[in-house]
Amino acid sequence: MSGRTPERPLVIDGCQYSNWSEPLFRQMRQGGLDALVVTVCYHEDFRETVENLIAWNRRFEAHGDLIFQGESAADVRRARAEGRTAVFFGLQNCSPIEDDIGLIEVLHRLGVRFMQLSYNNQSLLATGCYEAEDPGITRMGREAIREMNRVGLVVDMSHSAERSTLEAIELSERPIAITHANPAFWHEALRNKSDRVIAALAESGGMLGFSLYPHHLKDKSDCTLQSFCEMAARTVERFGLGIVGFGSDLCQDQPDSVVEWMRNGTWTRTRDFGEGSAGNAGFPAQPGFFRSSADFPRLLEGLRGVGFSESEVAAIAGGNWLGFFERSFGPAGSVRGSLPDDRAAAGARRHAG
Amino acid sequence: MSGRTPERPLVIDGCQYSNWSEPLFRQMRQGGLDALVVTVCYHEDFRETVENLIAWNRRFEAHGDLIFQGESAADVRRARAEGRTAVFFGLQNCSPIEDDIGLIEVLHRLGVRFMQLSYNNQSLLATGCYEAEDPGITRMGREAIREMNRVGLVVDMSHSAERSTLEAIELSERPIAITHANPAFWHEALRNKSDRVIAALAESGGMLGFSLYPHHLKDKSDCTLQSFCEMAARTVERFGLGIVGFGSDLCQDQPDSVVEWMRNGTWTRTRDFGEGSAGNAGFPAQPGFFRSSADFPRLLEGLRGVGFSESEVAAIAGGNWLGFFERSFGPAGSVRGSLPDDRAAAGARRHAG
Repeated sequence: MSGRTPERPLVIDGCQYSNWSEPLFRQMRQGGLDALVVTVCYHEDFRETVENLIAWNRRFEAHGDLIFQGESAADVRRARAEGRTAVFFGLQNCSPIEDDIGLIEVLHRLGVRFMQLSYNNQSLLATGCYEAEDPGITRMGREAIREMNRVGLVVDMSHSAERSTLEAIELSERPIAITHANPAFWHEALRNKSDRVIAALAESGGMLGFSLYPHHLKDKSDCTLQSFCEMAARTVERFGLGIVGFGSDLCQDQPDSVVEWMRNGTWTRTRDFGEGSAGNAGFPAQPGFFRSSADFPRLLEGLRGVGFSESEVAAIAGGNWLGFFERSFGPAGSVRGSLPDDRAAAGARRHAG
Repeated sequence: MSGRTPERPLVIDGCQYSNWSEPLFRQMRQGGLDALVVTVCYHEDFRETVENLIAWNRRFEAHGDLIFQGESAADVRRARAEGRTAVFFGLQNCSPIEDDIGLIEVLHRLGVRFMQLSYNNQSLLATGCYEAEDPGITRMGREAIREMNRVGLVVDMSHSAERSTLEAIELSERPIAITHANPAFWHEALRNKSDRVIAALAESGGMLGFSLYPHHLKDKSDCTLQSFCEMAARTVERFGLGIVGFGSDLCQDQPDSVVEWMRNGTWTRTRDFGEGSAGNAGFPAQPGFFRSSADFPRLLEGLRGVGFSESEVAAIAGGNWLGFFERSFGPAGSVRGSLPDDRAAAGARRHAG
């Protein structure tokens, strides 16, 4: 059914939001994707997010041969053993907790494992990267981080502004993630991250998922695999191997109305173009080397091509994320979450650095 | 039924949130209160706020001899003519618009006439006075102010922080209100307003409602009528007669659990004491000279006692608010909203200073 071999590296993608269908799930299997984090909220409130979870339950029923809901690092190992893909839930906004801190625990119980403290705008918790000013983490934000730490819901600052991100790293007692962004040293973009943020993230044991969304790439849709993998190599040289993984931000088969909704939600009566522009308002074309989940083997080949060893490729492809999942999804004080053995953690510690 | 005479000044209160009952409505009539703005939201979302409006509809049905819903300045005149009290709706938070700018027009249609851009915390629109940092009006906040201006929903910054308040005054094309707060020059408190804010408010044609909530008063529960009225006189001397009215913030017959809810909502798992303290966590006692709406005649006597003329008392008691209502509640471009004649506007212009 796929070209993978038992020796292939475990592969995890920290962020996708595609127009889900069976062909896409088959591409995941074809590309050897063992686990991914799917976005289940951009602007939705709690009730609407639950509706998105219900839609996923229907997909899990209909396509149980290809996918199932992941809740722990152990589920990634199970997915690999069973030749399926574990689908984890992530939120790109804090709108599902509305103004109710009690909803953090409820969402974790429902399987949500990542939550951005803001999308592009100011939220009740933190500031988005499109605001002119960033006052840092709010009063409720401090409370929310503490509660997320307690239950094992990972703080994700992918779309947040610089000061809020640095404060979240500082305030959070558990490592945080930037699930989908690239270093600004490679491609200067509002959504990409400064050296200062990446250094603080690395120092705290956090994770950076390399994005393959064209606006985050040098030369955008014309970005080459070589350039992308050299960026990965420079990031590892500067900040260590243990910090990096994939967070493709793949938005496959989506109509342009979806990116308009991501940018505008219901917060404005005018039209905001986000990372695009009036002349380029829709989804940009994916770079040739990464058009679907079936292309993960090409990414791994690219990493080998810039000199990464096989164990380094394995860390970037999924080992680092697996260790992070293991340390992050259980209640505070539990080192390993729900994983029944410590192999993945040991693997991650080797790469952490 | 009451001690009022036809010559008594028209009286408007810019803010109350009491535990509503027939005795309180009778006190309003006893005190000659022609109109007031009642809070219909502290933390509620849209649906919960609508439930609060339904509760008011039931009160209007049950006590139609005493109260009815006010929507325009004309309703204040009608209330006075009919010996009833017009009840206007105000929001102390922007939570009822959730993240949907379309809800601004819907709430205005339902009769809501004031909306705070924030309560004590950071909101999607602006910063509350309890946050450590105030970055000013957010991206969505700018859009919301424009939409509020368009439909005739007054921006209220009573609980907002300084920079956000100054920016709201600047950004709003129509005058804004601080429905319930006092000048900090009289009593330094986080909720009271700086000279700079009051000056900007006055210059823009806005309104300041003097609060009678003890934490906003010099000597708190021990504040004297003389001190309160001298504060009013100093405010008028410094900023003009046209800017001031009442906004009592009266929270009558409420259990202490209500002030705890105001402060904590559902945003924290710890306990925030707001303007109170661990040792003084509940509602503070009202000052002796203002315990219910029946005490408005005492306030007017106090104003006369510090030297205000009868026409000045009339402006402060209700004339200024009436003119503001007239200019503010209709769609943008309509000077007089829905009032059928221009007497109130002319009266307000006379006092506008």
